[in-house]
Amino acid sequence: MTNRQITLTALPQGALGPQHFELGEAPMPEPGEGDVLLRTILMSIDAANRSWMQGATYRDAVQAGDAMPTYAICEVINSRSPRLKAGDIVAAESIWADHVVRPAHKVQKLPPVRPLTHLLSVYGIAGKTAFHGLLQIGKPLAGETIVVSAAAGSVGGYVGQIGKALGCRVVGIAGGAEKCSFVRDELGFDDCVDYRAGGLFKALRAACPDGVDVYFDNVGGAVLETVLGLMNERGRIACCGAISQYDTETPTGPRNLPGVVVVKRLRMEGFIVMDFARDDAKATRALQAWVQAGQIKVFEDVVDGLENAPSALIGLLNGDNKGKRMVRVGPDPQ
Amino acid sequence: MTNRQITLTALPQGALGPQHFELGEAPMPEPGEGDVLLRTILMSIDAANRSWMQGATYRDAVQAGDAMPTYAICEVINSRSPRLKAGDIVAAESIWADHVVRPAHKVQKLPPVRPLTHLLSVYGIAGKTAFHGLLQIGKPLAGETIVVSAAAGSVGGYVGQIGKALGCRVVGIAGGAEKCSFVRDELGFDDCVDYRAGGLFKALRAACPDGVDVYFDNVGGAVLETVLGLMNERGRIACCGAISQYDTETPTGPRNLPGVVVVKRLRMEGFIVMDFARDDAKATRALQAWVQAGQIKVFEDVVDGLENAPSALIGLLNGDNKGKRMVRVGPDPQ
Repeated sequence: MTNRQITLTALPQGALGPQHFELGEAPMPEPGEGDVLLRTILMSIDAANRSWMQGATYRDAVQAGDAMPTYAICEVINSRSPRLKAGDIVAAESIWADHVVRPAHKVQKLPPVRPLTHLLSVYGIAGKTAFHGLLQIGKPLAGETIVVSAAAGSVGGYVGQIGKALGCRVVGIAGGAEKCSFVRDELGFDDCVDYRAGGLFKALRAACPDGVDVYFDNVGGAVLETVLGLMNERGRIACCGAISQYDTETPTGPRNLPGVVVVKRLRMEGFIVMDFARDDAKATRALQAWVQAGQIKVFEDVVDGLENAPSALIGLLNGDNKGKRMVRVGPDPQ
Repeated sequence: MTNRQITLTALPQGALGPQHFELGEAPMPEPGEGDVLLRTILMSIDAANRSWMQGATYRDAVQAGDAMPTYAICEVINSRSPRLKAGDIVAAESIWADHVVRPAHKVQKLPPVRPLTHLLSVYGIAGKTAFHGLLQIGKPLAGETIVVSAAAGSVGGYVGQIGKALGCRVVGIAGGAEKCSFVRDELGFDDCVDYRAGGLFKALRAACPDGVDVYFDNVGGAVLETVLGLMNERGRIACCGAISQYDTETPTGPRNLPGVVVVKRLRMEGFIVMDFARDDAKATRALQAWVQAGQIKVFEDVVDGLENAPSALIGLLNGDNKGKRMVRVGPDPQ
């Protein structure tokens, strides 16, 4: 039995491309005492994957020659630990591969949610990132205006829908007229502005007649600079990501920082979803309630086949996904 | 009787210079019902004065042709309000002038502290800005490392001394070897790094072997970018000012923002001293206790003469003050 896996062959200088990856075969890994052998079902594709190539973050940097790391949903197919048994569904810090071995105590058994895709989207990283970042850092109140960038993306779409459920005015920023229509018509935002159309400041000012109280930033760069100019005093910026800055050699900082932060007394705070793990049960309960009430719709963007993971990530960095992107490596269990 | 006042004749494009100001004479202003006539004793000279020329902030922008605004300590010399009487010492949002008229309810009667200069330095804007920004935003704990820029300046010097009183390691950043010696030897910081000497990142890393937990930022720009690179996870940045960005046509943003804020889960928050006015009594009590215990030394930089206010402000923007800069317009009352 062999096992396919994808290696990052070189660290990108500038834009990530297919030439940075290689699909290879290796022997099936063998679980040692206390380990589990996992079959990969779904792999999460995130902008953060690219940032891991820029140096150590909240995890070690990815190096040339490493198997590409990922967050994955897997089935236990062989357990040498009393903690887990064959057939269990788990989440794991894994790699782009058909099979991996992990210490049983390092994987997390998941509840019996179906479809499993929901464990990566609304009840997974995407939904929880949106929930925690918006509520714990953005702290919006009904009647306030929330702006979210990458609004058609996995996290942004939930941020806006949660904001609507809380009684806020919600304005998205997305790339292209088609995505903006999706954000308005399918996700139910009050408005969505196309950052590629030019004139972002004016368009956003028109869409936010009362200014911006909460900005959920997924992109950084020029869009962040523009939104900062529209923030109300005491506004909150949840710094979730900086996708505009990951795939470039020449990052640019918002020129109005920190001046505008001082003058408007803004709060900017970075977070990652694991920081709020102690509140995950609250997040799941609230998200389930909103889904059941029809206030949150689930949008997923599933790419089939391990071999398509590189193009799925490259495409995500170019903004071609709508909803949570993931790669299906194998079928859900019967 | 005439009254001298200084007008901003043109908004600066780039560096502020003496050509932007004009000293003129006007008739003595007359207080109406409910007003007080004030004699200016001391005028606070702050980097923020320059930022007011860049547009509306927490106050209206200064326009060409306006008398230059200032925060001032004044004596009431004629009162047409029951709230105040001649001889009272007050703080006022005023202008660069010998005399002004203000509504009595818009000025603040001050306690009988002598010398009056202390009401602008340790017990005034400088000390309170340092106290509130450090404690309420920086939230340092004993054993943590605090970095403060413009460390020889009015606010920075108190930030460091308060940090030492709280049991922290305190490292300053200042311009030039002489100022760095002053910060170390007179103000008692653990170390001080000269940003003009080059190699700021390495020098600061050596001075902060355990990284940086709290950064009190008075300058923005390249120094902010450098310190961000040394912040520990969950670090706090109190955004107090951006002096490097006020006197220029080409502001530059920290290129590592917001990426580093996300990855390290930093919190950046802007404030102005008035935001914490409800806690001013606490600040004064604590500062008095530290002054009495010898843990805080008071350094003041008093320039004599209304006519020297422009050069006092221009010099401050070029970093030539040590301690709180102010202009003495008239003597303390007998």
